[in-house]
Amino acid sequence: MFKKYDIIVVGAGHAGCEAAAAAANLGSSVLLITMNMGTIAQMSCNPAMGGVAKGQIVREIDAMGGYSGIVADKSTIQFRMLNLSKGPAMWSPRTQNDRMRFSEEWRSMLEKTPNVDFWQDTVKEILTKGDKVSGVKTSLGIEIESEAVVLTNGTFLNGIIHIGEKRFGGGRTAEKSSTGLTEQLVELGFEAGRMKTGTPPRVDGRSLDYSKMEEQWGDPVRGRFSFTDVEMSSDQRCCWITYTNQAVHDTLKEGFEKSPMFTGRIKGLGPRYCPSIEDKINRFAERERHQIFVEPEGWNTVEIYVNGFSTSLPEDVQYRALTQIPGFENVKMFRPGYAIEYDYFPPTQLSLTLETKVVKNLFFAGQINGTTGYEEAASQGFIAGINAHQKIKDQHELIMKRSESYIGVLIDDLVTKGTEEPYRMFTSRAEHRLLLRQDNADIRLSPIAHKLGLINDERLEKVTKKIKDSDFLVTYLKNTSIEASEVNSFLEELGTSPLSQNVKMFSLLSRPQVDMSDLRKAIPTFNNLLNSYDKETIEQAEIKVKYESYFEKELEIVNKMRKMEDQEINPDFNYHNMVSLSKEAREKLMKIKPRTLGQASRISGVSPSDISVLMVHISK
Amino acid sequence: MFKKYDIIVVGAGHAGCEAAAAAANLGSSVLLITMNMGTIAQMSCNPAMGGVAKGQIVREIDAMGGYSGIVADKSTIQFRMLNLSKGPAMWSPRTQNDRMRFSEEWRSMLEKTPNVDFWQDTVKEILTKGDKVSGVKTSLGIEIESEAVVLTNGTFLNGIIHIGEKRFGGGRTAEKSSTGLTEQLVELGFEAGRMKTGTPPRVDGRSLDYSKMEEQWGDPVRGRFSFTDVEMSSDQRCCWITYTNQAVHDTLKEGFEKSPMFTGRIKGLGPRYCPSIEDKINRFAERERHQIFVEPEGWNTVEIYVNGFSTSLPEDVQYRALTQIPGFENVKMFRPGYAIEYDYFPPTQLSLTLETKVVKNLFFAGQINGTTGYEEAASQGFIAGINAHQKIKDQHELIMKRSESYIGVLIDDLVTKGTEEPYRMFTSRAEHRLLLRQDNADIRLSPIAHKLGLINDERLEKVTKKIKDSDFLVTYLKNTSIEASEVNSFLEELGTSPLSQNVKMFSLLSRPQVDMSDLRKAIPTFNNLLNSYDKETIEQAEIKVKYESYFEKELEIVNKMRKMEDQEINPDFNYHNMVSLSKEAREKLMKIKPRTLGQASRISGVSPSDISVLMVHISK
Ligand SMILES: Cc1cc2nc3c(=O)[nH]c(=O)nc-3n(C[C@H](O)[C@H](O)[C@H](O)COP(=O)(O)OP(=O)(O)OC[C@H]3O[C@@H](n4cnc5c(N)ncnc54)[C@H](O)[C@@H]3O)c2cc1C
Ligand SMILES: Cc1cc2nc3c(=O)[nH]c(=O)nc-3n(C[C@H](O)[C@H](O)[C@H](O)COP(=O)(O)OP(=O)(O)OC[C@H]3O[C@@H](n4cnc5c(N)ncnc54)[C@H](O)[C@@H]3O)c2cc1C
Repeated sequence: MFKKYDIIVVGAGHAGCEAAAAAANLGSSVLLITMNMGTIAQMSCNPAMGGVAKGQIVREIDAMGGYSGIVADKSTIQFRMLNLSKGPAMWSPRTQNDRMRFSEEWRSMLEKTPNVDFWQDTVKEILTKGDKVSGVKTSLGIEIESEAVVLTNGTFLNGIIHIGEKRFGGGRTAEKSSTGLTEQLVELGFEAGRMKTGTPPRVDGRSLDYSKMEEQWGDPVRGRFSFTDVEMSSDQRCCWITYTNQAVHDTLKEGFEKSPMFTGRIKGLGPRYCPSIEDKINRFAERERHQIFVEPEGWNTVEIYVNGFSTSLPEDVQYRALTQIPGFENVKMFRPGYAIEYDYFPPTQLSLTLETKVVKNLFFAGQINGTTGYEEAASQGFIAGINAHQKIKDQHELIMKRSESYIGVLIDDLVTKGTEEPYRMFTSRAEHRLLLRQDNADIRLSPIAHKLGLINDERLEKVTKKIKDSDFLVTYLKNTSIEASEVNSFLEELGTSPLSQNVKMFSLLSRPQVDMSDLRKAIPTFNNLLNSYDKETIEQAEIKVKYESYFEKELEIVNKMRKMEDQEINPDFNYHNMVSLSKEAREKLMKIKPRTLGQASRISGVSPSDISVLMVHISK
Repeated sequence: MFKKYDIIVVGAGHAGCEAAAAAANLGSSVLLITMNMGTIAQMSCNPAMGGVAKGQIVREIDAMGGYSGIVADKSTIQFRMLNLSKGPAMWSPRTQNDRMRFSEEWRSMLEKTPNVDFWQDTVKEILTKGDKVSGVKTSLGIEIESEAVVLTNGTFLNGIIHIGEKRFGGGRTAEKSSTGLTEQLVELGFEAGRMKTGTPPRVDGRSLDYSKMEEQWGDPVRGRFSFTDVEMSSDQRCCWITYTNQAVHDTLKEGFEKSPMFTGRIKGLGPRYCPSIEDKINRFAERERHQIFVEPEGWNTVEIYVNGFSTSLPEDVQYRALTQIPGFENVKMFRPGYAIEYDYFPPTQLSLTLETKVVKNLFFAGQINGTTGYEEAASQGFIAGINAHQKIKDQHELIMKRSESYIGVLIDDLVTKGTEEPYRMFTSRAEHRLLLRQDNADIRLSPIAHKLGLINDERLEKVTKKIKDSDFLVTYLKNTSIEASEVNSFLEELGTSPLSQNVKMFSLLSRPQVDMSDLRKAIPTFNNLLNSYDKETIEQAEIKVKYESYFEKELEIVNKMRKMEDQEINPDFNYHNMVSLSKEAREKLMKIKPRTLGQASRISGVSPSDISVLMVHISK
């Protein structure tokens, strides 16, 4: 009934969709098996993409030819570039999305990807031949063969939903869980753990009083994730902000004795940085209020996502607490918030390609690896899809570096350090975040994607031109003098000291008070010049001018560390006999099988002196 | 957490959606509780509305202010008026629909209906006070109070899905079933039965060779269901026709020994008139081929619905058989066909308002009553919603007559005769089908809907004008003579005999060869006159001219029968003591509790002589 596929991807969540698309676009025949074709790329929780560090990841996926950015752009109902008041490393695109459009758009893009086939079913087992995966077996009892398998089961493995003291099986509200697979993998030698996450109630927008809330509009000019020319609407929808208060907190506390989290019924650890509202008022008891973002679920629906109010307290407690939030006095709920517990596989069982160490050609990506978030899932799926293809086609593997992408940081963190609680990305996790900006994701990653064959010549040329043109503009600014008389009155207006002599434009633009648009206004010839460059190129030049010195320092650090990062180690090296290593280091090194000295140095339990020992040994 | 509602509707399928909308539009506060807010008005089977007799029902719902017609129009990807070569009683609008748009449009219309609130949950029990329903209890343990409850659980009650020898619980593929409710209702005194239905596999349109199939386009000018001015696209998508053959049948037969239907594993009776392909080749062994309609599932998706190939044979048999259909040689399947068994409640337990006889203020509508089809479900939901409102507001009940609507025929059939297999509507079920046409649904039903308050004055006026204007045109045609010389050459062109003397236009138009557009072409003054009338009015006049005599005869019959139909009987009448009735008649009359002599006469087991006895008794 089925031919033998190159790659089977299990699960059409954010990870599975990117995995299928990437592998198919590289030329593999892909079968995407998912439990319900009506929920492809369903946003389980908030209808939003991007945000701090996550927005950078979406840009990286897009730069490399993944689909998440395009899908998000096409389904955006509001766009904001966060942190514009900070340096460009912190600028983070974030969209509010139409939940249905997002899912539909993903499905439509996959349907347009010729090598992707679909099958609606539940995978119950993987098939193996020797130490290699050879396909899957489904709940219908069908065995389907493939060269590689990517598992992206999300929160579905033995999922249990909690609302107050009630609990029932499910992979998401109103969806079945997936059973059997964890047990088989454990039998094959995998270690599994338990995690939890939660989601807020959804409410009826018609029952809210928006006049009591603050409006939050998107950016006046709608930005985008994708470096491609996605057609998209310029309309945006308004969101709102309101706050909890002492009364809300007091009501919530009444439910604590029935909370699955505080009574110990939930064993798995939850995401520290996406805490439930009960967590927040428990851990930050001194805080008088917490912010609540009131976010529409789409263009036309009245359904509202109550961002900041994730909870698994009994539904009547949720309700009563909600009614005490300004604007929510007459709230009507559509669905209660809930927590979900699910199986994950500690990601230290993976190599940096996201292939498992126990079973060859088997890859894990997404929430199954202990992460949380669509963006984290999507990026892993993308890399797993690429590496599954590369592996079975005997091509070189793709290992993303920490110094070149957040994706690299994410995977290296997971695989090297593991995670005991749901892992989400932060800018602080990236030591070289000054270089890993949303504005240069294309510059950083297009060459890699082009070499793989994921983006075409035209896209690469566009990036090359952006580099060339922005460099030209920087040079122009460095070389072109400006007369004091020409700009002094303008500088005074901007509140910065006038020039006593002519200077290069570069030095003017380096001033914090002066930006490119100021220069354009002040100097008509420059304005004329810029008219023939696009927004991104001009922005890139401006960022280079203003932050070049920081970037250069960061690059120096990267280069210094490069020796260690590039120093390869045989992953199958037997550390057991290296008595000069500490016992803990030997065990950890055997488990993680680091690929480079740099990776080894980040393994917890491997000390700098262990690294010195390794260095000496390797250089021998 | 919840206020007391006027009406709780359980299930947001086609029945539940219409019920909620109707009751809310009449002024009741409605809570619509459904298992999954993502599947509101999901089309479980074919993405199509209307068709023979069913299209008439959609027009009737629309004429009365229901939403199904509007939703179908807005999501139409192809429109065809079936049976145009037959008389107007057979003309039947049918649309192919975008499955996602259909569901989304319904949800959006409900969200715009102010009195409808939503709650995502599963109802496990109804609550009662004395002999009256008082609310529901959900799987979250929440008790919600109401004056009336409408149950529209569709195929979800103890649903079991069958594919070959495999079976698993589910209300629809990839959706949970609903348990507990049947058992409670049985405990309350209801009788429950088991039925089954099936659906064909969905396949990948990219894998089909359309050049081997016949194209089937929609009508050149797109028609519509709704009598309102729905904004809709004029684009349409193509469908295709292909055929099974002996090889397909032989392959299917190989699976018979594993068929859940032939091995007796499925107990419930299936729809005789929507048979599975295995049924068809079994029952009509002499047929060399069966028609297969190849229908897209939406505007943009490649998913294809294989209409005519409903099956619950093992999925590999489905696959192998499909590959032998011309154009399907390289078919890739998305999801296999399956059969589903579910609980229903024999509808003889209802009164003509769709209220149950056992529990007051409890209404049943849709597939739960043993019907099949979206249109049948929607119309019952609509009537149940109205009657639930009327009941709790102490307003007169709405009983639709067999002589005025298919909806009346449907409900009278169900309640009076019951059904042992899934009931679907046919024109042949309506004794007065000449009068129950799609073209006059507004004329027949708008006054009723207006009196109830479901349509506004403007809509009624539009209908009144249509009647007045078309009557005027008929009179004009009756009174206006035409000169032989003016039209004779034209008549010869049309292949009908020339006039020897002047005649009224009416008599010309009565000829089968001559239609209104011919007259317009032949007679410029008439054409000018018609230019100030709309399409529907002109069509109505034409139908009246061509078929008036038939209609009049039919009306006479209706009038003759009226005495019996209008002769009310006290539904609580105790027949036990009427010894002159046959024993069977007494039992059946006690069970069905007919409201009129007409209804009594249709009860199986009640003979004409029993009716005479009743007549005599009543007239005393
Ligand atoms: C209740 C809830 C709350 C959340 N809250 C947050 C939050 O606050 N912040 C945040 O960043 N993230 C949150 N998330 C996480 C976010 O939804 C996930 O990180 C993201 O969706 C993971 O993507 P994924 O592709 O790994 O898995 P998912 O999106 O879960 O997709 C998994 C897919 O695999 C399919 N599948 C599973 N098992 C099988 C099988 N055996 N066979 C076939 N198909 C299968 C499923 O049907 C589904 O399509 C939450 C998730 C849930 C459910
Ligand atoms: C597999 C299959 C094949 C079919 N084939 C055909 C066919 O060939 N021809 C044809 O005409 N018709 C067919 N049908 C029937 C058609 O789908 C139904 O007639 C129509 O959908 C019935 O509408 P409904 O509103 O009664 O129920 P449904 O459309 O089934 O809707 C029921 C709704 O109630 C909800 N629900 C159920 N129980 C609960 C509960 N306890 N609490 C809360 N919510 C609940 C469900 O989630 C769902 O939203 C088929 C249906 C199925 C499933």
